[in-house]
Amino acid sequence: MAAGPVSRFPVPELADLPQDIRERILKVQEKSGFVPNVFLALAHRPDEFRAFFAYHDALMEKPGGLSKAEREMIVVATSAANDCLYCVVAHGAILRIRAKDPRLADQIATNYRKAGVTPRQRAMLDFAMKTATRSAEVEDADFAALAAEGFSQEDMWDIAAIAAFFAMSNRLANVMSIPPNDEFYALGRG
Amino acid sequence: MAAGPVSRFPVPELADLPQDIRERILKVQEKSGFVPNVFLALAHRPDEFRAFFAYHDALMEKPGGLSKAEREMIVVATSAANDCLYCVVAHGAILRIRAKDPRLADQIATNYRKAGVTPRQRAMLDFAMKTATRSAEVEDADFAALAAEGFSQEDMWDIAAIAAFFAMSNRLANVMSIPPNDEFYALGRG
Amino acid sequence: MAAGPVSRFPVPELADLPQDIRERILKVQEKSGFVPNVFLALAHRPDEFRAFFAYHDALMEKPGGLSKAEREMIVVATSAANDCLYCVVAHGAILRIRAKDPRLADQIATNYRKAGVTPRQRAMLDFAMKTATRSAEVEDADFAALAAEGFSQEDMWDIAAIAAFFAMSNRLANVMSIPPNDEFYALGRG
Amino acid sequence: MAAGPVSRFPVPELADLPQDIRERILKVQEKSGFVPNVFLALAHRPDEFRAFFAYHDALMEKPGGLSKAEREMIVVATSAANDCLYCVVAHGAILRIRAKDPRLADQIATNYRKAGVTPRQRAMLDFAMKTATRSAEVEDADFAALAAEGFSQEDMWDIAAIAAFFAMSNRLANVMSIPPNDEFYALGRG
Amino acid sequence: MAAGPVSRFPVPELADLPQDIRERILKVQEKSGFVPNVFLALAHRPDEFRAFFAYHDALMEKPGGLSKAEREMIVVATSAANDCLYCVVAHGAILRIRAKDPRLADQIATNYRKAGVTPRQRAMLDFAMKTATRSAEVEDADFAALAAEGFSQEDMWDIAAIAAFFAMSNRLANVMSIPPNDEFYALGRG
Amino acid sequence: MAAGPVSRFPVPELADLPQDIRERILKVQEKSGFVPNVFLALAHRPDEFRAFFAYHDALMEKPGGLSKAEREMIVVATSAANDCLYCVVAHGAILRIRAKDPRLADQIATNYRKAGVTPRQRAMLDFAMKTATRSAEVEDADFAALAAEGFSQEDMWDIAAIAAFFAMSNRLANVMSIPPNDEFYALGRG
Repeated sequence: MAAGPVSRFPVPELADLPQDIRERILKVQEKSGFVPNVFLALAHRPDEFRAFFAYHDALMEKPGGLSKAEREMIVVATSAANDCLYCVVAHGAILRIRAKDPRLADQIATNYRKAGVTPRQRAMLDFAMKTATRSAEVEDADFAALAAEGFSQEDMWDIAAIAAFFAMSNRLANVMSIPPNDEFYALGRG
Repeated sequence: MAAGPVSRFPVPELADLPQDIRERILKVQEKSGFVPNVFLALAHRPDEFRAFFAYHDALMEKPGGLSKAEREMIVVATSAANDCLYCVVAHGAILRIRAKDPRLADQIATNYRKAGVTPRQRAMLDFAMKTATRSAEVEDADFAALAAEGFSQEDMWDIAAIAAFFAMSNRLANVMSIPPNDEFYALGRG
Repeated sequence: MAAGPVSRFPVPELADLPQDIRERILKVQEKSGFVPNVFLALAHRPDEFRAFFAYHDALMEKPGGLSKAEREMIVVATSAANDCLYCVVAHGAILRIRAKDPRLADQIATNYRKAGVTPRQRAMLDFAMKTATRSAEVEDADFAALAAEGFSQEDMWDIAAIAAFFAMSNRLANVMSIPPNDEFYALGRG
Repeated sequence: MAAGPVSRFPVPELADLPQDIRERILKVQEKSGFVPNVFLALAHRPDEFRAFFAYHDALMEKPGGLSKAEREMIVVATSAANDCLYCVVAHGAILRIRAKDPRLADQIATNYRKAGVTPRQRAMLDFAMKTATRSAEVEDADFAALAAEGFSQEDMWDIAAIAAFFAMSNRLANVMSIPPNDEFYALGRG
Repeated sequence: MAAGPVSRFPVPELADLPQDIRERILKVQEKSGFVPNVFLALAHRPDEFRAFFAYHDALMEKPGGLSKAEREMIVVATSAANDCLYCVVAHGAILRIRAKDPRLADQIATNYRKAGVTPRQRAMLDFAMKTATRSAEVEDADFAALAAEGFSQEDMWDIAAIAAFFAMSNRLANVMSIPPNDEFYALGRG
Repeated sequence: MAAGPVSRFPVPELADLPQDIRERILKVQEKSGFVPNVFLALAHRPDEFRAFFAYHDALMEKPGGLSKAEREMIVVATSAANDCLYCVVAHGAILRIRAKDPRLADQIATNYRKAGVTPRQRAMLDFAMKTATRSAEVEDADFAALAAEGFSQEDMWDIAAIAAFFAMSNRLANVMSIPPNDEFYALGRG
């Protein structure tokens, strides 16, 4: 797998990409030391690339009641429910770094009910998982359970929107068969 | 339901929205005669609104091997699999109009295997449904089935990406509990 | 689909049918303006036809605590759970007419939890859906939930029996591949 | 359970029943030596009782390509899929008697794939089980598999109709919580 | 099936077995009047045979808060959930004998919720079934439900361990396709 | 979780254990540098401990056609299907070491279809997963698929027996809520 292709679909050369996309990719490379495969795979379609990362950043980088580590918890839990190798491994790495915990990602990916999280985070993950797997059944009681843990209405939107965005992301990565970069497996295990 | 709120979350006044979003909404209102509720519901978060519709248009409005009616078939079939009332009713209307067929949307929403579609469209829907419900199991044989019906690699991307985008969209509409506008139910029924 | 056969199985000529069945069919034709396909499909087996409609009428036409619209709600919700195209479309039409509501059937067929129904009707549909999909798990608490909404014991029988009868009916229509008559799609939408 | 009620719903006295129903019940009592509980439970609603048994007899007693034992195999397999205690035990007894095999019913109820049946009967049970559990997915290939084993079109109707009828019957018995008569457990065990 | 092989895998001759295994088998034959097929099937691998029966006896033969009949209830309920023909029929026989009840095993195998058991036994079976089918979701509330019925901590271990051991046993018997001995079907029905 | 208890059940002191069990535990501690929690959790019941590890060693330590790394692949894949945190993390570590591959375990745990394995290993994992999740449906075709990849009959037994043993092991670890030792998370990550 390590030496396999970055996507089932054509992968552009960096030099052939529109300026803004090339710059975005070079920026992440500079920061991380490598280019995460999802950037290269999605760059095949520049307009979709731009929308995808604009949406991603709007949910994952903005300020709000959820910490950045908590947002990654949602990504890892729901991506595991969708058996998405790329997302579990890549966002597992980010979660380890943001939570400064070398084990939390593996716990959440395998069985979030057994992970070392607070009751508030457990409620957050229950809601995210229901959004990911049975969203048509989400009802008032689910929102009440979040409110009981002190989540604001904006937090509730964030939880649902992150789970929904990665429902899309997981399906793209699964169908494109994007492998995680080798670097992600080891990051933050320190 | 008809008189219920447009979303579980706060819905902005048109006058309070950023210029670009207000213009987009007024444009759709002009074209359709009403403002689809999803525009108002998502406008609560302008950055997410912009990314959502940029992504939507990149997939649904661009040229390509799939007709616009076929893209709506994918939306209706996968949204029905997710029991998403807003998406089934709103995109059912669009499908009726684009396919110039007053019955196809109800057929696809209820059981796409019994719908009046071509074998090529059936293969397209099988792939879309697998992407929507079991994406981790998509493998070479699924791509081969599409190729056997003459779909290009770009078409395959489109099918998967539309199914993935509405995996997100369905979850948002379900959690936000966005009702379809009354107008959608009757549109295109001839 | 519109021009397809009425059933995978042989469909008799009206003239060849036993007198009582022909009269029943002519009566429904007179009332509706067309012969619903299920009448023609089942007429291939006169004894089964007679038993089917005797049972149907005993449940759907008799007086009782459930309104005729409520009985159709049960049919539409459970038929959608069984992905039965014929029953969802045909009984969706009847529900629109009986409830005098052009949108309720599409709501119930897509996600009955989001439909514009009363709490009493919601309890009725929860019980019907459990009967349709997990009847072995029906227990005292399910009956208590109905009693709490004021349903009598005879109403409870009706809810279960209608869900059970259409469990049969959905399977017959699915296996026979009976298409809804074109007329049903548009009825009651006005 | 042995001493429990015959139904969650009111059970009529034999003396209070309409003449035709009382006679039908006395006839089965004379033949079997006891009154199967389903007769008493359903007699609470005479019209439904009449339709139910008319339908039952039309499917189970008529001549045709399926032996009476084979029809009971379908009942036992699909009733086990629905976890219906009454139907599995009562029809298990009838199957033992009709097949003159003391073990076949337990085999089919537990895992029909391991039962001592012919390849033709295995194909019949595969079709019946698909009708019982995933009827919306029944397609041409399923009919072809039956044809390959020599089943006629009328046989195919019978298989589907028996599976469909007991989909109803299982749900009624489950919701009514009808216990099998003690006699059934031992019948035909040799 | 009756005359079929004892296993898909090679079955040793009694004479070729190690002394301890031959003695164990002869002892069970002496006690039961026949050699249960699972003994012959597993004897193909003596070390696994020894470990299997040592584990079995440690759970099923030791003293404790669960009666021997109750332990067999767990086996029958969970084996039915796994559709294991050998285990349902063989342990159904043992349950009939230990509970001195000719009908309980069939009730538990078909739908344990309808079986003639005490509320305490019902709680035991609920816990065993969750262990068998959704063990990752077992949480504090499940243990609390057992405690409320008076089960000790050691009893809770026993319930879980028996369900877990037969999760293994069911899979072995299913894959090996071990048929129940004819004798088991009739035992204890008297 | 790191600081949590080793089991929901009582955990013995090493000094209080029978000699043979203490020696086994000390031996694993000497080899690994720590005592895996499952040893301490199961030691609460010495007879079960002995049977468990005798069975484990008979399957995992004996010679045969499956490499030790391949046996661990089966453990990791099926334990992930059962959402067993202890087994995925502990056996993930062992797999990394035995396969000398720092990434294979995470791949197999998340989606074995995307893992860097040979077609022969893929067939092995397909069979193991069917044994773990749908063993009642294992039939001739499943064995034929293994034979086509060159597996011997003894190999087939090994695959099934390892999957079955960990079906038990996963349920025990889930119900006991045994956390992986911190050491396992990092082992073999190079």
